[in-house]
Amino acid sequence: MPQINDHIHTVQYYETDKMGVTHHSNYIRWMEEARVSFLEQTGWDYSRLEDMGLVSPVVSLNCEYKHPTKFADKVSVHVEIEELRSVTIRFSYTMKDQDGNTVFTGTSLHAFFDAEGKPLKIRKEHPDLYATLSSLVRNVPE
Amino acid sequence: MPQINDHIHTVQYYETDKMGVTHHSNYIRWMEEARVSFLEQTGWDYSRLEDMGLVSPVVSLNCEYKHPTKFADKVSVHVEIEELRSVTIRFSYTMKDQDGNTVFTGTSLHAFFDAEGKPLKIRKEHPDLYATLSSLVRNVPE
Amino acid sequence: MPQINDHIHTVQYYETDKMGVTHHSNYIRWMEEARVSFLEQTGWDYSRLEDMGLVSPVVSLNCEYKHPTKFADKVSVHVEIEELRSVTIRFSYTMKDQDGNTVFTGTSLHAFFDAEGKPLKIRKEHPDLYATLSSLVRNVPE
Amino acid sequence: MPQINDHIHTVQYYETDKMGVTHHSNYIRWMEEARVSFLEQTGWDYSRLEDMGLVSPVVSLNCEYKHPTKFADKVSVHVEIEELRSVTIRFSYTMKDQDGNTVFTGTSLHAFFDAEGKPLKIRKEHPDLYATLSSLVRNVPE
Repeated sequence: MPQINDHIHTVQYYETDKMGVTHHSNYIRWMEEARVSFLEQTGWDYSRLEDMGLVSPVVSLNCEYKHPTKFADKVSVHVEIEELRSVTIRFSYTMKDQDGNTVFTGTSLHAFFDAEGKPLKIRKEHPDLYATLSSLVRNVPE
Repeated sequence: MPQINDHIHTVQYYETDKMGVTHHSNYIRWMEEARVSFLEQTGWDYSRLEDMGLVSPVVSLNCEYKHPTKFADKVSVHVEIEELRSVTIRFSYTMKDQDGNTVFTGTSLHAFFDAEGKPLKIRKEHPDLYATLSSLVRNVPE
Repeated sequence: MPQINDHIHTVQYYETDKMGVTHHSNYIRWMEEARVSFLEQTGWDYSRLEDMGLVSPVVSLNCEYKHPTKFADKVSVHVEIEELRSVTIRFSYTMKDQDGNTVFTGTSLHAFFDAEGKPLKIRKEHPDLYATLSSLVRNVPE
Repeated sequence: MPQINDHIHTVQYYETDKMGVTHHSNYIRWMEEARVSFLEQTGWDYSRLEDMGLVSPVVSLNCEYKHPTKFADKVSVHVEIEELRSVTIRFSYTMKDQDGNTVFTGTSLHAFFDAEGKPLKIRKEHPDLYATLSSLVRNVPE
């Protein structure tokens, strides 16, 4: 089972808004940054998946904004696989600022599709990928 | 009760990603665009609220991606107030493309704060605003 | 010669930054919005060009920030073709706020490439497109 | 004279567009990221400058796009102070991909203003800051 490090995002000036804090839309992008980093650390980076003809668009999102962040904050994003099913995967995200405050929690559900846009059962079609992801699931459905 | 028109957003080239469709993070921004337009049409635009010392940051989001959109699509965003409480308001959003396909549904929960960052009971502090918003609520809590 | 209307962009909350004004990176995106609208009004919209196997990436940009804009401003973007050459086109942009202040001027230089990424002489390969664009050039090079 | 390291930016999925490469507007943001990092390394970070009541908005930009970048590329951004004058500063930027290709060059001109929006002569008002920046200028004007 690979060791996964949290993703660190430094809040950029262009991510702030006139309230003086990070605009809420950016956290969705940090979820993606952290998910990309997570998968890269498992050995199954996005480019490799796309080369295999596998795409996994976002199906749904849930976001809880706990505490504002501001310019130059160092936000750590912890990612877990919350659920892995035949044709979907759900990631969870916990973001903390440099003082340890939880600033955001969220989940994203993704579907697996092949290059033709048809649902793809990765357990059957890509057992190696499935094995790696399974080993990282926090809660395996019975 | 004011007549509210749906917001129309034309998908921009810079909103697409390498999958050839709109990147999912942009829908969060269209929710904001439509919410801003909705409030402006009620007569209580953001600038007026900020002048009153009232801010309403996003507390949570739920997003369901139903169908991809692509460059130059004309997306209509229908906004409703799903719930109005003492210190919070929940908006719902339904987005359709020019062919009438529902492409996205979502909700956003916002809290009311005063300029010092303290929760603000708009029913009491801003009864005019409360009256307008109340008249537009789809489901008033008992 | 087609009649071209200026593009109108309403400044969004997510385009502001902690200085309370529009972040400078967004003007680059409004240049694109206005260029897309300009070409659409000539009858040669981006999608049609891409269907013809023609892409025109940005080669260089020049931007002059004259006056800040702020949330909810209505910015009009006037586009002209400054120069049309065999394999390049240069657009110029003048942006004004609702009070008539010039807030930004800029230019963008684009090259024409075919689907294989080779420079494409549109005068020869797409004479109809060249004729339309020529009729709109402000300064034809001798 | 402080040692300044180049800024490294990893191209994010949300920064790509339907041409499959990085959208050109993002390079403006990387210029800012690198400028922020540069100033932080000199000991005069943005927050410190803002605390001093000093802002330095972008007055003009020049951008040359040399070579496309793509998702997951590691782009290094080298920043230099090209010119320091009484009330303005010009930075130059050279971006390279992980293979050493120069992908972008550009400059940004900034003006110094005080909190009231008046031009501020940093040589006189902030001699310590001026001294540090001067020591880093590539070409001091005679």
